[in-house]
Amino acid sequence: MTGAILVVGAGPAGLAAAHALASVGTPVALVEKEQRLGGAPILSGYAKLVPSGEWAKDAIGGMVARVESNPRVTVHRGCSVEKLDGEPGAFRARLSNGASIEAGAAILATGFTHFDSINKPEWGFGTYPDVVTTTQVEQMISSGRGIRCPSDGRKPERVAILLCVGSRDRQIGREWCSKICCTVSCNIAMEIREELPDCHVYIYYMDIRTFGLYETKYYWQSQEEYKVKYIKARVAEVTSNGEKLVIKGEDTLVKRPITIPFDMVVHAIGMDPNVDNPRIAAAFGIELEPHGYIGKGSAYGALGETSRRGVFVAGAATGPETIDDSIAQGKAAAMAALALVTQPRSVVAA
Amino acid sequence: MTGAILVVGAGPAGLAAAHALASVGTPVALVEKEQRLGGAPILSGYAKLVPSGEWAKDAIGGMVARVESNPRVTVHRGCSVEKLDGEPGAFRARLSNGASIEAGAAILATGFTHFDSINKPEWGFGTYPDVVTTTQVEQMISSGRGIRCPSDGRKPERVAILLCVGSRDRQIGREWCSKICCTVSCNIAMEIREELPDCHVYIYYMDIRTFGLYETKYYWQSQEEYKVKYIKARVAEVTSNGEKLVIKGEDTLVKRPITIPFDMVVHAIGMDPNVDNPRIAAAFGIELEPHGYIGKGSAYGALGETSRRGVFVAGAATGPETIDDSIAQGKAAAMAALALVTQPRSVVAA
Repeated sequence: MTGAILVVGAGPAGLAAAHALASVGTPVALVEKEQRLGGAPILSGYAKLVPSGEWAKDAIGGMVARVESNPRVTVHRGCSVEKLDGEPGAFRARLSNGASIEAGAAILATGFTHFDSINKPEWGFGTYPDVVTTTQVEQMISSGRGIRCPSDGRKPERVAILLCVGSRDRQIGREWCSKICCTVSCNIAMEIREELPDCHVYIYYMDIRTFGLYETKYYWQSQEEYKVKYIKARVAEVTSNGEKLVIKGEDTLVKRPITIPFDMVVHAIGMDPNVDNPRIAAAFGIELEPHGYIGKGSAYGALGETSRRGVFVAGAATGPETIDDSIAQGKAAAMAALALVTQPRSVVAA
Repeated sequence: MTGAILVVGAGPAGLAAAHALASVGTPVALVEKEQRLGGAPILSGYAKLVPSGEWAKDAIGGMVARVESNPRVTVHRGCSVEKLDGEPGAFRARLSNGASIEAGAAILATGFTHFDSINKPEWGFGTYPDVVTTTQVEQMISSGRGIRCPSDGRKPERVAILLCVGSRDRQIGREWCSKICCTVSCNIAMEIREELPDCHVYIYYMDIRTFGLYETKYYWQSQEEYKVKYIKARVAEVTSNGEKLVIKGEDTLVKRPITIPFDMVVHAIGMDPNVDNPRIAAAFGIELEPHGYIGKGSAYGALGETSRRGVFVAGAATGPETIDDSIAQGKAAAMAALALVTQPRSVVAA
């Protein structure tokens, strides 16, 4: 039986799991398909994170640095697990680069895939250059370039953020809610108002889901301190009148059609299941849940159990998730994996 | 330096932390102010839990049994911590029963207090016996007595569930969202329809916050399979016409006053900060956040850090929280505490 733990994916959940295990003396093999660690917040260039307000490059970058400098963590970059053989306490993972890893347990922290707005063509992405995604706006902020219309580089005077792009939308096969886009959009709206105080920012929503304490910090603050405007609406289409983008829809509070011009339209894109999930499921011999995320058991036993004993899952691999909860789940999975490899062999075999 | 960890509170977060630590060989002192372990799900008699659908008495009861039978966990019932002295690695807790506990680190899993509907008098609780809370409905279900009007024991033909009672309500000093009441209410609505197929169930809401994968399992299923009806409304008051309860308000989608009679009205009560928090903060020398929950640092370091080093916090003690996330946070805090007591003394002192 080997005491090492295999962690797959180096986003917030995987980094948290790897660090937690290393800090109690457990060796970790961390496998990341990209060359760079950090997951979506780093690879997609997020700006200030919800709810800490810290820059992603500092907050998640710090988690990366901590793991990279830890001698107990062996990082395998640019590769993936092709097959997991063996049993709890004695797994063997075959990597795509030909290497092989022995591990007592495995934690999948393989994350999600951003919804591709091209799959919602009537809302203008791909047709009009000034229709962008929340991820692109994050990049405008984190790069220091600031909020600019891609078409001509001007500062927008009117920006609309459309919620639920690729979420709560059965027409395109995505009926789930992506959980954090409402709050992220409130945050981005305030960032835009902070940089461009004369810019008007509107959020088009179905329900505002700034749950828990996000209510105060994001929903109320964005309205009262930052004067962000909220419109409960069904958006029909985003077109152009030649000069401005035009959002056509129905205000569902006053039951009237509304047509409003904007300089920039932002899609608050949802969290799809990782496009690699079918391959991951096959490699690890685990089951996906009906939407295509990695299935997990109930939380009362060893939190984050997949359908295969000894293989745990954490974070947005299991469904839309916040960064904070991904980190908590990463550490919880680390704890479950640690308990598994700590137990005497007879118990593991039982 | 002692390797034992003090865990305060035996709800889902505390039970998860205690079990996790014990399963990797760490001794735990678990302090619970009540005589019975299990926290709100057990003490308040919850029925089937979100999202597993398992009965609270089985799911959380199983967590209780696992901890009570673990020889590494010493349970101190019916008492609280009066003072925590010392420093990380060498704390000493003085209990209200006169006992004293040595611990390397402490985890606060002290939970929340249910909102008392008496503080929203215009919505009829305390005036009309058939105005009840979600907790009372959970008890009707978990006790096996079934959904009955308290006034005369009849089966209700029309039930309304009012969301955001003690949440998102600045008039009564509670501007936060309680995060899980929307989903719990969808679940209860389906339970009522399951038991009483002829009963009409309405949910009065501001925003429906069935975030993430709850969207499918609760929001869609309750409407399509269980025919629960949703009304976006501002509720003004709950009165009686002598025979029925009457909800008066404004339908905010059609902007019209609506007055509808019901047999039973259910308050979806929110999660207040634990009423003991000021005392807990003083005993542990930690700070509360502005709403009165226990303050915590950002998640990127040792998740669940309070303002005092070596004292961690998990679950609804930090704000409205789901049971699953409370469990994850309990295990994450266990991991952080374990790392702290595992480190060599020189590092701890640094």
